[in-house]
Amino acid sequence: MSSTWKCEEARVPPALQLLTPPITKFKIGLCQMSVTPDKERNIVHARNAIMKAAEMGAKLVLLPEMWNSPYSHESFPVYAEEIDAGSEASPSTAMLSEVARTLNITIVGGSIPERSGDKLYNTCCVFDTDGKLKARHRKIHLFDIDIPGEITFQESKTLTAGETPTIVDTGAHLICYPGAFNMTTGQLLWELCQRARAADNQLYVATCSPARDVASVYVAWGHSTLVGPFGEILATTEHDEAVIVSEIDYSQVELIRTNLPLQNQRRGDLYQLVDVQRLNC
Amino acid sequence: MSSTWKCEEARVPPALQLLTPPITKFKIGLCQMSVTPDKERNIVHARNAIMKAAEMGAKLVLLPEMWNSPYSHESFPVYAEEIDAGSEASPSTAMLSEVARTLNITIVGGSIPERSGDKLYNTCCVFDTDGKLKARHRKIHLFDIDIPGEITFQESKTLTAGETPTIVDTGAHLICYPGAFNMTTGQLLWELCQRARAADNQLYVATCSPARDVASVYVAWGHSTLVGPFGEILATTEHDEAVIVSEIDYSQVELIRTNLPLQNQRRGDLYQLVDVQRLNC
Repeated sequence: MSSTWKCEEARVPPALQLLTPPITKFKIGLCQMSVTPDKERNIVHARNAIMKAAEMGAKLVLLPEMWNSPYSHESFPVYAEEIDAGSEASPSTAMLSEVARTLNITIVGGSIPERSGDKLYNTCCVFDTDGKLKARHRKIHLFDIDIPGEITFQESKTLTAGETPTIVDTGAHLICYPGAFNMTTGQLLWELCQRARAADNQLYVATCSPARDVASVYVAWGHSTLVGPFGEILATTEHDEAVIVSEIDYSQVELIRTNLPLQNQRRGDLYQLVDVQRLNC
Repeated sequence: MSSTWKCEEARVPPALQLLTPPITKFKIGLCQMSVTPDKERNIVHARNAIMKAAEMGAKLVLLPEMWNSPYSHESFPVYAEEIDAGSEASPSTAMLSEVARTLNITIVGGSIPERSGDKLYNTCCVFDTDGKLKARHRKIHLFDIDIPGEITFQESKTLTAGETPTIVDTGAHLICYPGAFNMTTGQLLWELCQRARAADNQLYVATCSPARDVASVYVAWGHSTLVGPFGEILATTEHDEAVIVSEIDYSQVELIRTNLPLQNQRRGDLYQLVDVQRLNC
């Protein structure tokens, strides 16, 4: 029997037309590095991890959330960098730009605290193979949690939320989440959330966490992971420092969307997801 | 720093006001029953399973998807019942009504094929403690899959999709999914999807599957489960026939929404979820 609803109306405005990516298979590297109070050491350490991933064949390398700074309100303003103010003001992103160009790889540079005027952001910079800044994402959903006796942290106390989602390539079939889940949310939600976003959207999800340091104030969960478009775990670390490389094959995304055509089953007559910014363009 | 967006604008129209449920703690029973081609046997068998769950203390009992009929295009029209046409035309729902009243329990009656005019629906009937039909839900997202060599099934070939979501009590803190996942989607997605919906919405999710019968054309996955509002599995069966009873405590929902206030973090300036039907009311 024919359906009477229009599934394409479930997205307003209509979804961006997906372009076929020029490369369908490539290796991604996840650098689960330890983060210390020594910022210079963190920068050298990140560079070494990126080089290791590239040596293992990675063409795209992902770093953790807050990889140049301890994860604390006291540290964010001290470790923050003005990304637009040149390499002296932003040694962390200067290193990413240099190593991306030198190794001819793309880097999704985890995040660092960014200073802009009197505000601080939790910011991810993406550098292209020529070393140019391809995108800058300021975290839009800040993390606020209060479980008495377990974990209390309000990012919104010192950080400002970003104002826009960031899509690097129209047609991207991969979501990258630099993330620093803790021992409570890590256990409960880290694997679940990334697998759910992959399965719901039928695409790849890559996550990268700092390595676990039980001596730090905020203990990261670790377990950086690559998830495939059926929500299946393709590669994962434990909680210690590790660099892992695994293959992404975008043809799998098309195949699974053909096998299980979720996009044709949306009920535009019942619900709509509105992209407010694109609507107002 | 203060936020400039209004999280409540992420839902259009605004979310229904949640009422505090009159009972905060109760036991739910999941009846993972075997389904055979003998409809009369299925009805007796379901009644016995419901009685067993009630004896174990369940005040709410959930049955599987398509519990009175084999899951096949040939069977749906043969086993279908006209729910509004009295107990002779609908022996399956007549039994549910009678046993709900007799045992003074609420029954979320899985689903059966429903005939209405020249259409067939995959329909869930909810019966109140007085035996009255409290709600009828016709599945709105039909299941279409085509993985060559593994599983091919198009519900839309014989069934018609329902036209509205079904909310039984305003303020409900529980989603019930009668489901008949198969050996492919079961392995990949069954546990993931229910845990994700629980964690994303911070509420309880109960699922109920037919028991696995490897001799049938469509082999159900089993693994009926109760998931808590952090996405944690509270009780689950294996794939054989089983009745399990577990406790729901709605105060946990409020607690977790206070711990991790996801509803305050929605970005109404960036995206909106529109309930089209309530908007047009």
